[in-house]
Amino acid sequence: MRKYAIIGVGHVGATIAYTLVCKGIADELVLIDTNAAKARAEQLDLQDAQARLDSRTIIKINDYHELDDTDILFVTSGNIHALDHASGNRWAEFEYTKQIVQDIAPKVKATKFNGVVIDTMNPCDAITHYFQRATGLSRQQVFGTGTFLDTARMQKVVAEAFDCDPKNISGYVYGEHGESQFSAWSTVQVNGIPITSLVDKYHLDLDALEAAARHGGWAVHSGKGYTSFAIATCAVKLSEAVFANARLACPVSAYSETFGTYVGQPAIIGKDGVESVTTLALTADEQAKFRNSADTIIEKFQAFDDVLSDSSVKKRQQA
Amino acid sequence: MRKYAIIGVGHVGATIAYTLVCKGIADELVLIDTNAAKARAEQLDLQDAQARLDSRTIIKINDYHELDDTDILFVTSGNIHALDHASGNRWAEFEYTKQIVQDIAPKVKATKFNGVVIDTMNPCDAITHYFQRATGLSRQQVFGTGTFLDTARMQKVVAEAFDCDPKNISGYVYGEHGESQFSAWSTVQVNGIPITSLVDKYHLDLDALEAAARHGGWAVHSGKGYTSFAIATCAVKLSEAVFANARLACPVSAYSETFGTYVGQPAIIGKDGVESVTTLALTADEQAKFRNSADTIIEKFQAFDDVLSDSSVKKRQQA
Amino acid sequence: MRKYAIIGVGHVGATIAYTLVCKGIADELVLIDTNAAKARAEQLDLQDAQARLDSRTIIKINDYHELDDTDILFVTSGNIHALDHASGNRWAEFEYTKQIVQDIAPKVKATKFNGVVIDTMNPCDAITHYFQRATGLSRQQVFGTGTFLDTARMQKVVAEAFDCDPKNISGYVYGEHGESQFSAWSTVQVNGIPITSLVDKYHLDLDALEAAARHGGWAVHSGKGYTSFAIATCAVKLSEAVFANARLACPVSAYSETFGTYVGQPAIIGKDGVESVTTLALTADEQAKFRNSADTIIEKFQAFDDVLSDSSVKKRQQA
Amino acid sequence: MRKYAIIGVGHVGATIAYTLVCKGIADELVLIDTNAAKARAEQLDLQDAQARLDSRTIIKINDYHELDDTDILFVTSGNIHALDHASGNRWAEFEYTKQIVQDIAPKVKATKFNGVVIDTMNPCDAITHYFQRATGLSRQQVFGTGTFLDTARMQKVVAEAFDCDPKNISGYVYGEHGESQFSAWSTVQVNGIPITSLVDKYHLDLDALEAAARHGGWAVHSGKGYTSFAIATCAVKLSEAVFANARLACPVSAYSETFGTYVGQPAIIGKDGVESVTTLALTADEQAKFRNSADTIIEKFQAFDDVLSDSSVKKRQQA
Repeated sequence: MRKYAIIGVGHVGATIAYTLVCKGIADELVLIDTNAAKARAEQLDLQDAQARLDSRTIIKINDYHELDDTDILFVTSGNIHALDHASGNRWAEFEYTKQIVQDIAPKVKATKFNGVVIDTMNPCDAITHYFQRATGLSRQQVFGTGTFLDTARMQKVVAEAFDCDPKNISGYVYGEHGESQFSAWSTVQVNGIPITSLVDKYHLDLDALEAAARHGGWAVHSGKGYTSFAIATCAVKLSEAVFANARLACPVSAYSETFGTYVGQPAIIGKDGVESVTTLALTADEQAKFRNSADTIIEKFQAFDDVLSDSSVKKRQQA
Repeated sequence: MRKYAIIGVGHVGATIAYTLVCKGIADELVLIDTNAAKARAEQLDLQDAQARLDSRTIIKINDYHELDDTDILFVTSGNIHALDHASGNRWAEFEYTKQIVQDIAPKVKATKFNGVVIDTMNPCDAITHYFQRATGLSRQQVFGTGTFLDTARMQKVVAEAFDCDPKNISGYVYGEHGESQFSAWSTVQVNGIPITSLVDKYHLDLDALEAAARHGGWAVHSGKGYTSFAIATCAVKLSEAVFANARLACPVSAYSETFGTYVGQPAIIGKDGVESVTTLALTADEQAKFRNSADTIIEKFQAFDDVLSDSSVKKRQQA
Repeated sequence: MRKYAIIGVGHVGATIAYTLVCKGIADELVLIDTNAAKARAEQLDLQDAQARLDSRTIIKINDYHELDDTDILFVTSGNIHALDHASGNRWAEFEYTKQIVQDIAPKVKATKFNGVVIDTMNPCDAITHYFQRATGLSRQQVFGTGTFLDTARMQKVVAEAFDCDPKNISGYVYGEHGESQFSAWSTVQVNGIPITSLVDKYHLDLDALEAAARHGGWAVHSGKGYTSFAIATCAVKLSEAVFANARLACPVSAYSETFGTYVGQPAIIGKDGVESVTTLALTADEQAKFRNSADTIIEKFQAFDDVLSDSSVKKRQQA
Repeated sequence: MRKYAIIGVGHVGATIAYTLVCKGIADELVLIDTNAAKARAEQLDLQDAQARLDSRTIIKINDYHELDDTDILFVTSGNIHALDHASGNRWAEFEYTKQIVQDIAPKVKATKFNGVVIDTMNPCDAITHYFQRATGLSRQQVFGTGTFLDTARMQKVVAEAFDCDPKNISGYVYGEHGESQFSAWSTVQVNGIPITSLVDKYHLDLDALEAAARHGGWAVHSGKGYTSFAIATCAVKLSEAVFANARLACPVSAYSETFGTYVGQPAIIGKDGVESVTTLALTADEQAKFRNSADTIIEKFQAFDDVLSDSSVKKRQQA
């Protein structure tokens, strides 16, 4: 039996819920939201759909005890509409979101939950770290969608440049799910050909492609006020890799021992969450960008007092 | 190749689009909205998901010429947020929605579109009629989701009363997708047993169940501000029956020769849209409710001047 | 996590395995067969497909210990090719199949398996009973596909007579998954209309339709030497109802307290297997056919000495 | 509407048919086989499944006229059981299979079929070439599954060596769908890392991995007497890329202008079939193996008199 829970049924959480139900992925689904009427409405809307779906999903709401035997927990809280996103800066959300985590984490910790947590809240890397520490769950079983979405956007913009399927594009966006992220072009292939070897022939502007991937979310935001479909698709795909113990290669926000922070990097996703992280031979320039992006995450994370007590981060700063 | 178009990418239209893309149902999808930025944002969000989906859907926006070879057109316009729904009356939307149809219909008519139209706009029955007449498309190829959703809600509330799968409940909600609808209990079976024979044993309050089904939409509305998942699921299921020429039995808003109006009733859905309507042996009381509901639709429809020119409706009034 | 096992990877077992893998239903799948090379070949063929599927299923073979935490066990053994089917009599398989069960059952019993067993072996009703008794598993958690397939065939032949989707046909085939089965026409509806009311208008020959449903399997057998797709589809659908605790209404071979035998009848399928059986108001003629079919199962079952020790059956005989 | 046809409903064709039906991919499906009883039996078995599937597929048999508006035609004839496969040589099938093509091709040519042909018959490369020439269809619209399956097997064996998902392995098997094929290791990456850089660290025996991929089919054959699941999965995936105009990168048996023959190589699959072939920077050794494999295909192809009249092949020989 596949049992899922979602904390936060805003646009992202609700779209994840719908995906799990309409594709028959979840056998049981628990929706939790401080807005009880919203959770109830999503439950009703999903239940109303059941007579028209071949599968059935039992849907429950607002009971943390249900986490006791939940396999996968999505954390998707955060009222994006409450914030000014004109700046295009996901960090603006941190203080607000942190308070949400401060509310949620103890409640999760109080249950017998021992599954895998997939976080989509922003700023993704810092919040994932914060949530992992606050719940006492292992770094393996808590990870964030991180640059899994940004990588999908990079695949899309590159695919458009070559008029092909985004799945033909391999390679990774590394770093922060935010401004300091970067496309590691040395890892990117188009139909099996290194993109770096195609730059001249196709007059590629890699910086423009990178920027398009980085700002892909804002393009969506500006038109619909939030993002939902791509992030939900990414989150669900990760959860399926966990259930199947697929050991699928995906860039996610995983804890880096090197940097002492969660940060977007290639990882292997299996039954325990992050089974391992993968170290690719980045160029010196990419390595510098990666360190810089990790430092950006740490720096902002530390701007909050409570973060200073995190020993693993301190150690990194002393090194 | 399955080519779909959606006019109006609000919550319903966007959820239909996501369903078609995430389940790999559509090969090509055209999104049309007067809010070009919204259409573009939905296109981007869906495209961003493509690298994470096994299937691919080519997504285009805002080009009516694409309707020339479109197989299925969903009409899902109507800004539900612009209206006061406190009254729980879908007719309040009519004047507003009618103007939208007055904008859309000529544009559809100007194309070579000759596929099937599935309307989810409210008030569903009247708008479907209006749209069919305005486009000159046949009554067979234009139909509304009508009581397909209300029937799903009836199945849900009955299933809850018997603690079983909603799919175990057969039977139909007839009439207006609105207040005058009714659950035709003589058609309803629970696990193969007529519900009317279970009333005493299970202390059923059929009126309460009917009311719960009728007002299921408002329960969702009040919590999330709109409905999306169930209506999108219904609309997509109908479209699949068309593509497959399934000749699937579904209650939809189909034109009634008897009443001279579109109204929710059992029909057979196949490649041409409504292949036929099914006449069940309703009780005299149900027949009266059915006629009353049809009259309600006609009456409101006629409250608009332009409606008066509809000869088929006039004939009905004279009879 | 959804963990499945299949004992017997002949045509039916292998097709079930493929369905579970190609639709991403199973997270883990154990294939068991006395022909180790066959089990290994099916494992390899399924694993070869994995790079082309969006989902992943971990596939193991020939280890009964894997049943310890298996959720659903399909029992699909029985070498149909070893037998003379010219007679069209599923009972011919019993002695042969019984020996298979005598081999399998103790091995299952020796594990910690406590999931649900779905049996497709023929003669389905008797073998399911035999298997349940031999393993000591509860009558709730062991059931057979029984007339779920025959009912699908009845739906098909009736649908062809009315040129509509088989899903438009409701109602049940009762009794033995064999010659003594019968279509309970009083339960059958076509597009919501009792079929008995349509006989004259459509010049229906209900006996001919019943015979077509009953002999549907032989029509397939005679052309391809076995049946696989429909039975596998039925078996998988039942398993999904168990995982989701759907409480879906399906005719299956379930234990009848009334008759003291497993026999095809409407039941509610949920997490524990057969949650309950449903008693419909059959006609006196149908009741007689039902009893006769149950008696046929019992009689044949008792033809085997070891069956005589079954107290529940004895009680029935004394009554 | 997605209309498919399959010529040859042996194990491969029937499994393709089942996949299209059980996943709801095909709206209409035509099964053609010289064994009319077999085609009829598969039709019946698939139709019997329809009442248990959410989707519906209209299934027709043995009417070449249905090809007039068919979008995708799978050619999967060839009675594998009639041949001695002990030799492990797919060429043994050629003479037998050629006669089948000589029967089929004119019948296809006589229709208005103008869709895409996907051939799975063996020897795949030569038969695809032969079929294309005999039907007069373009080289773009006719291609074979070729090394798409062998590549999947390479992905599997490499994934097993690294305990990860086969989808983590990128790269291609080139050449003949037969003995002269080779894994182009310079194109292969494991979790984004070139496999050639991992040989020492992981004590990889690339030759053994290549042999395992090459002989993967025989391992399946020896245990079950045929292969079906993986080849059907590959074929269906290619067809979906055509319908969606996905422009998906897949190694298939596509016509090589360089070598004057169909041969397994990376290609872009879209609405017209093979939209283009992709030239990767193979090593000199790989280039030699590729040429050798292509020559092997040509040589065997020419062993048949009628082949000598193929001008494109002659030109290659003169060059």
